Amino acid sequence: MNKRWSRALLAATLSLAVAGGAVAQMSVENQIKTRQSAYTFAAWNMENIRAQVIDGNVPFDPAQVQAAANAIAAVANSGMGALYGPGTAQGIGWKQTRLDPKFFDEPERVRDIAVRFITEANKLQEVAATGDRRAIARQFGEVGQACRACHTNYRLPE
Amino acid sequence: MNKRWSRALLAATLSLAVAGGAVAQMSVENQIKTRQSAYTFAAWNMENIRAQVIDGNVPFDPAQVQAAANAIAAVANSGMGALYGPGTAQGIGWKQTRLDPKFFDEPERVRDIAVRFITEANKLQEVAATGDRRAIARQFGEVGQACRACHTNYRLPE
Repeated sequence: MNKRWSRALLAATLSLAVAGGAVAQMSVENQIKTRQSAYTFAAWNMENIRAQVIDGNVPFDPAQVQAAANAIAAVANSGMGALYGPGTAQGIGWKQTRLDPKFFDEPERVRDIAVRFITEANKLQEVAATGDRRAIARQFGEVGQACRACHTNYRLPE
Repeated sequence: MNKRWSRALLAATLSLAVAGGAVAQMSVENQIKTRQSAYTFAAWNMENIRAQVIDGNVPFDPAQVQAAANAIAAVANSGMGALYGPGTAQGIGWKQTRLDPKFFDEPERVRDIAVRFITEANKLQEVAATGDRRAIARQFGEVGQACRACHTNYRLPE
């Protein structure tokens, strides 16, 4: 993704992350199910990169790593704020949501965490396009920390 | 995505679509759960585009449509063939899989359908980058037909 689009998408995503955005109306259950799906898909792609650039139990294939990084960035930029509508700290999507209700009391902190996830995922996408395995491994760690920032603050224990 | 990468990813995806690929080992349940997640995430992005360029019940925002097209292409190119390992026509991911067992008896037809999905999703990503709403609507229809080709042939009724 080039920088101009990256900035435009960041702006679009942030407006969604904060305000909910002008997307089609979805039930609470459907919002929860869709965000659980997005994170499950992103986590699979994170695991694919980890296996190739960290654990090394799968041969490093730059095209596969780039595809996985594209997928993670696509999730980050998809306007997932729209899936955190009012009332979605309670409810069953594929399973009971683990969202901490305090998510809705701390919009600025939530926005900072969302910005960090988007920024680091976009950087991973850029680094993955170079095929530099060590640089990818480093940036993979940054994305992982951005994920954890939200888990630590807003995901309740199982 | 530029054409060189597009071709490289197509090749990588096809090798996965057919052979399963050298990805980390996953349980049957996890393969099913992950593909259900990927399609749910893709369907949400399809709905976002539909609302903006077909139904018109949400204002057309080119940056959001591009983000959604990126997400659909990212799913198509993520090497989902790896999630169709042996034995995955039976099993529970988020829910019971609806994969028709004949999926495994018709690898060439499956590959053709996978290629079509990847090709049409990549075209939608390119068209979305132009911001041409009518062209996006047209190509959105092509992606929808590619999705249906698999549903019609390999998805059992609910």
